Amino acid sequence: MGYTAKAVQVVTIKNLYTHMKVSIGIDIGGTGTKFGIVSLEGKVLYQGAIPTQSEAKFEDFIKLLAKEIKKGLDPKKYELIGIGVGAPNANYYKGTIEHAPNLRWKGILPLANNLEDEFGVPVVITNDANAAAVGEMIFGGAKDMKDFIVITLGTGLGAGIVSNGKIVNGAHGFAGELGHTTVNYVGGRFCGCGKRGCLETYVSATGIKRTVYKLLADHNEESELRSVSFDELSAEMITKYALKGDFIAIKAFEYTGRILGTKLADTVVHSDPEAIFIFGGLSLAGDLIFDPTKEHMEKHLMPIFKGKIKIISSQLQNQSAPIIGASSLVIDKLKKDQEELLNS
Amino acid sequence: MGYTAKAVQVVTIKNLYTHMKVSIGIDIGGTGTKFGIVSLEGKVLYQGAIPTQSEAKFEDFIKLLAKEIKKGLDPKKYELIGIGVGAPNANYYKGTIEHAPNLRWKGILPLANNLEDEFGVPVVITNDANAAAVGEMIFGGAKDMKDFIVITLGTGLGAGIVSNGKIVNGAHGFAGELGHTTVNYVGGRFCGCGKRGCLETYVSATGIKRTVYKLLADHNEESELRSVSFDELSAEMITKYALKGDFIAIKAFEYTGRILGTKLADTVVHSDPEAIFIFGGLSLAGDLIFDPTKEHMEKHLMPIFKGKIKIISSQLQNQSAPIIGASSLVIDKLKKDQEELLNS
Repeated sequence: MGYTAKAVQVVTIKNLYTHMKVSIGIDIGGTGTKFGIVSLEGKVLYQGAIPTQSEAKFEDFIKLLAKEIKKGLDPKKYELIGIGVGAPNANYYKGTIEHAPNLRWKGILPLANNLEDEFGVPVVITNDANAAAVGEMIFGGAKDMKDFIVITLGTGLGAGIVSNGKIVNGAHGFAGELGHTTVNYVGGRFCGCGKRGCLETYVSATGIKRTVYKLLADHNEESELRSVSFDELSAEMITKYALKGDFIAIKAFEYTGRILGTKLADTVVHSDPEAIFIFGGLSLAGDLIFDPTKEHMEKHLMPIFKGKIKIISSQLQNQSAPIIGASSLVIDKLKKDQEELLNS
Repeated sequence: MGYTAKAVQVVTIKNLYTHMKVSIGIDIGGTGTKFGIVSLEGKVLYQGAIPTQSEAKFEDFIKLLAKEIKKGLDPKKYELIGIGVGAPNANYYKGTIEHAPNLRWKGILPLANNLEDEFGVPVVITNDANAAAVGEMIFGGAKDMKDFIVITLGTGLGAGIVSNGKIVNGAHGFAGELGHTTVNYVGGRFCGCGKRGCLETYVSATGIKRTVYKLLADHNEESELRSVSFDELSAEMITKYALKGDFIAIKAFEYTGRILGTKLADTVVHSDPEAIFIFGGLSLAGDLIFDPTKEHMEKHLMPIFKGKIKIISSQLQNQSAPIIGASSLVIDKLKKDQEELLNS
């Protein structure tokens, strides 16, 4: 299933001697695009980055990206077997980016097609949370798990759900949008999606900033955060002040973890995961975020699940994680193709 | 995966001539146990029922059940290929019923083992909601769907979730317990599971009874329901009065549909189903329950899902549905075994 590559002529590299098999992982973000050449064992052999929004035309962005990647793709050393991309509003089934609000190019972008034309290999695309989940399954902490969830905490909150050993994409390719479950039906925070009270307006790097401002409004305690503007404030800064004992910053993590844990209790009864991995900047705050999350998930869990669901930090926590996650899509795709061939 | 049959000697029937291949479907409920002999096309060829709780020992219950089934299992006509059972607290992976609060036999009951000893064929067991979902996929309205959900509204609320064409059982075999997502965190209705505010305390045959009593307390309007005691009251009665225009009964359905629809909006972002099927007594109330459910689901859906998710009545709505659903587990199991053989 999923987006199927056109028949393409593999023109890049001949595997005459002992070329190392590699895949390319690409992580397209709102600001920057990271890429890497990755071995089948998950080792990043070469990497780089370009700004996402510098080119007015999407085709020119792809050309620039391909040019930068090819600088590291030595045909004497490597045999390229495929490309995996994590991208916003990625349609796994069609290989397109569709109406991404955070990108300058509007409409439907034929991402997979364009990359295939450049490299002559199959291209798999999905959203960044699914890429993180596949990465966790192939190279991270979920190697022996068939049922788990990866929650990504960035600008928003995304989730990659794996059931029966496979990513759940759903009927329209949008499964796992847990950031848009509702926390507060009446007077909740305004969300970029058009709704109010969505989970990601509370639990994300942006959500915790909003919480700090709410707490500064509600409380009288001293806080170094009183001298920081909303635009200057970052999740890293909140973590830093919380670790220094700042009342507001600590309370912001408690508030965030309480809401996340409470909603995860609902998520658990849906897919019954062995573990929930937390990925992204906020998870680096450690116990500050994990303790209240665990406490409030356990409190609201249906009794048969109590004490059974692990909440752990992603084991792909480094700068290259999005690249490794994206590259692992290729390995996952090859496995699926083989299964389908056997079942057909 | 799942519970695997011991190597057993097939002693029952020899397929010498043109025996029709059949499976047995068994639905174990708190009060009665229904069974049927079902063709591979989903036709019930023979059926019966026994009380669930008449025998003090579980082994004796199985012996009585087997005796009754064998009355219809003519070895000159049928070749038995397997048995599927829908049962409360069924552990799909182990083939056992575990600590079922509504059964008189306590502890862990080796249901699959006992039935295998009686019939010498593989036995698959799961909870009734998963059995309904497999039935919907093989014989009902989900024949061409790979991603859908069946919600069963009975004494409680259960769900069978299908993703990528497979039932989601989860890491511990308890996926789909949507009846225990939380509607009301503060002062919600007491639930049999030990929590408060669970969805099934509002949305189920029992939940709507509780709602009728709440509404009779809140409102002054005339209602024929004022002359009915809680013990006498049934979901069928509420439907009947609602269809006759009773203010309280109509309001009870609106209240039930509003809560169901609101929570389904959260469920949709988890697995992105093509359709949600509603199964069981309450769904026979038609528009009374479907209209408010659809309205409130749409209202709270993340915009990318709006207008895309069907809410429809199960197409297995008849007395034999639980038997057909249970028997279809056998067909599903045979398919899976074949896939695993090919992939091994």
